[in-house]
Amino acid sequence: MLQSENTKQIPLMSLNRFEAFSDGVFAIAVTLLVIEIKAPDLTQATSSEAITKLLQVLPHILSYATSFIVIGVIWINHHALFHFIKRVDRTILVINLLLLMCVAFIPYPTALIGEYGASLPVVVFYGLSLAITGFAYNALWFYVVRRYIKTEKLIHQKVVQKATIWTLSYPISYLVAAGLAFISINLSILLYALIPSFYLLPGIIDKQLMEQV
Amino acid sequence: MLQSENTKQIPLMSLNRFEAFSDGVFAIAVTLLVIEIKAPDLTQATSSEAITKLLQVLPHILSYATSFIVIGVIWINHHALFHFIKRVDRTILVINLLLLMCVAFIPYPTALIGEYGASLPVVVFYGLSLAITGFAYNALWFYVVRRYIKTEKLIHQKVVQKATIWTLSYPISYLVAAGLAFISINLSILLYALIPSFYLLPGIIDKQLMEQV
Amino acid sequence: MLQSENTKQIPLMSLNRFEAFSDGVFAIAVTLLVIEIKAPDLTQATSSEAITKLLQVLPHILSYATSFIVIGVIWINHHALFHFIKRVDRTILVINLLLLMCVAFIPYPTALIGEYGASLPVVVFYGLSLAITGFAYNALWFYVVRRYIKTEKLIHQKVVQKATIWTLSYPISYLVAAGLAFISINLSILLYALIPSFYLLPGIIDKQLMEQV
Amino acid sequence: MLQSENTKQIPLMSLNRFEAFSDGVFAIAVTLLVIEIKAPDLTQATSSEAITKLLQVLPHILSYATSFIVIGVIWINHHALFHFIKRVDRTILVINLLLLMCVAFIPYPTALIGEYGASLPVVVFYGLSLAITGFAYNALWFYVVRRYIKTEKLIHQKVVQKATIWTLSYPISYLVAAGLAFISINLSILLYALIPSFYLLPGIIDKQLMEQV
Repeated sequence: MLQSENTKQIPLMSLNRFEAFSDGVFAIAVTLLVIEIKAPDLTQATSSEAITKLLQVLPHILSYATSFIVIGVIWINHHALFHFIKRVDRTILVINLLLLMCVAFIPYPTALIGEYGASLPVVVFYGLSLAITGFAYNALWFYVVRRYIKTEKLIHQKVVQKATIWTLSYPISYLVAAGLAFISINLSILLYALIPSFYLLPGIIDKQLMEQV
Repeated sequence: MLQSENTKQIPLMSLNRFEAFSDGVFAIAVTLLVIEIKAPDLTQATSSEAITKLLQVLPHILSYATSFIVIGVIWINHHALFHFIKRVDRTILVINLLLLMCVAFIPYPTALIGEYGASLPVVVFYGLSLAITGFAYNALWFYVVRRYIKTEKLIHQKVVQKATIWTLSYPISYLVAAGLAFISINLSILLYALIPSFYLLPGIIDKQLMEQV
Repeated sequence: MLQSENTKQIPLMSLNRFEAFSDGVFAIAVTLLVIEIKAPDLTQATSSEAITKLLQVLPHILSYATSFIVIGVIWINHHALFHFIKRVDRTILVINLLLLMCVAFIPYPTALIGEYGASLPVVVFYGLSLAITGFAYNALWFYVVRRYIKTEKLIHQKVVQKATIWTLSYPISYLVAAGLAFISINLSILLYALIPSFYLLPGIIDKQLMEQV
Repeated sequence: MLQSENTKQIPLMSLNRFEAFSDGVFAIAVTLLVIEIKAPDLTQATSSEAITKLLQVLPHILSYATSFIVIGVIWINHHALFHFIKRVDRTILVINLLLLMCVAFIPYPTALIGEYGASLPVVVFYGLSLAITGFAYNALWFYVVRRYIKTEKLIHQKVVQKATIWTLSYPISYLVAAGLAFISINLSILLYALIPSFYLLPGIIDKQLMEQV
């Protein structure tokens, strides 16, 4: 556990219960996504009609998968961040609550884009929701880095800088993708799906963790 | 772990599993709030019509955010309380079950106030639900303080008194805010949103924890 | 941890993860109950009309509270049972899965009785659902007692007998209450609400745990 | 904990939090299944009409029970797999996220088959969903076996081979059962219900764990 003598904020909460609550919200948000996929009305439908109607659910499944990976990526990074610190002060609690509020909100724009994927405002709204969630994570990242990681000099300065750029580029990518919707809605949706997949690849955090081990 | 020889009640449950169940209910209640935000019907809507309809969802989002923070604040205090004791007797289990029953109920008045924020009975109902939840937390607080914290003399008497006032003022604030709805509904709603934000600031519990550390 | 040399079944799963999954299902089942309470349509309702419609939700809230306590009681007993053993074999896993299947099903009859509390088949269906859940818990209890608690002679025989009667009387009470619906539906509903409250009082399990501590 | 010097991938995440998140998704997916069982409209229904309508819910309850056990079986195997390793690298995280995405999706085809159990495309869709989930679990299994279990030579080669066949036969059974729907829909549904029950019986993993203990 990190301990700096000049820290005035105190550990309000054990990391254990803080993580349990956060993991709970992540796990529920991700699982609730499926509720938003509505069953088509197949009463008196022939087999071929049923297949057609089931295929129309595909945009819902795509938006489900995208949001699932988006939340999954934030969860992975959330863990990696709290791997470094063992202390949870009130500021972290508050920022984390705001982050979880954004994460738990994602099923709503996901349902919208699954239903109205051709509507420009809906596509922009989805991108902005993910961007705001990403910025909330960045707020957590910047606070933790400034308050604990830098003062403790636990991690090499250059690694922190690279990881910061990596972390910050996440919501900015969503802002750009949302902006591109004004040119092409399909391009936006493609980018929405690609961005989190890109972040599943090994990143800077990994390398840092590797050096530590 | 606190141990007093004259205690007749026994630890029915490990704190670990007690907290896991409680954290689960808190995390799910908070995440379920989003389900109550209904998607507007955007079929055949133009972009500007879609924007108008999406903006009409704003009261739902405000009520979502308010209830999220309300439950978050109770969760933070719940943790702080069980930071002091390591023992869960049957009385705690029962009061805690009643508290969780109130917490898990909050998505219902939240959905109502998001939909019918101009209806006086709905606004009062929302405030009363939060007040009752707060009083349930107070019941837990008073029991734990009398039974364990005071007898163990673990915490300074004055700190307990201050924290008690702080804890008690939470549901009373909601009662007052609910009462003010008879004068101005908007004032009530404003207070509903402000009260939990106020409780996110560092409080008496924090100072106590700081002294302990 | 109990260890008997002649045991052929093996610990398939750490108690930790077994309890985490079980607690998760209990916590979610209990919190999902609120989803079934539908918001009344208050569009263009006057304040007094809105109050009338909100009061009509009361049966839903009563059934919510009843099922919440029912699941809460089973959760408390579930914990108390696994307090005694530290081993989870495949038979326990299977019975536990069936128990959780019953517990996770409870929101459905709860929604039904909240909506159609005057319908005899619905009232009987609710009672039967709780009785079956109780019998599933009993199956777990009997297996654990025969396989581990009796062979280990950890607990006094008389205590086991008393606790068995106590445990068995739970689903039987629900069977009787369901049967009484044919005489009076209201009597059944009253009993449904009273039975779990009765089980929140200190019981035989507590005394046993007290002797142990 | 396994440690091999030549491993280049690093433990990105503690097994503890990885399992907590996974268990959360399993527990929520399993509990959400009940939401899809819609309450019949019993307004003004006589007792006998109500009974008829409640009996019509039976296919929903059967599909609920089947999917519950299917997810339960995967959860049990998921645990057994991570019993062997204590390390979670990025590849495991990614495959696991895809597995959880499949698991969390199951409530959707479950709702469909409960409602439209006579529709060939729906019955095939349900079987394919379970098969894909099974293959996702197999991907996790093959990766873990190749990367950790074989290189560490922790488990006897023959046991790994038997367990592999056992694991692989799970999704293949669902593929076959889905294919048989073209001959008889009822046969498919019967097999869907039987396959997971079969996997609740003691298996190869158990024997391996027994030898270890």
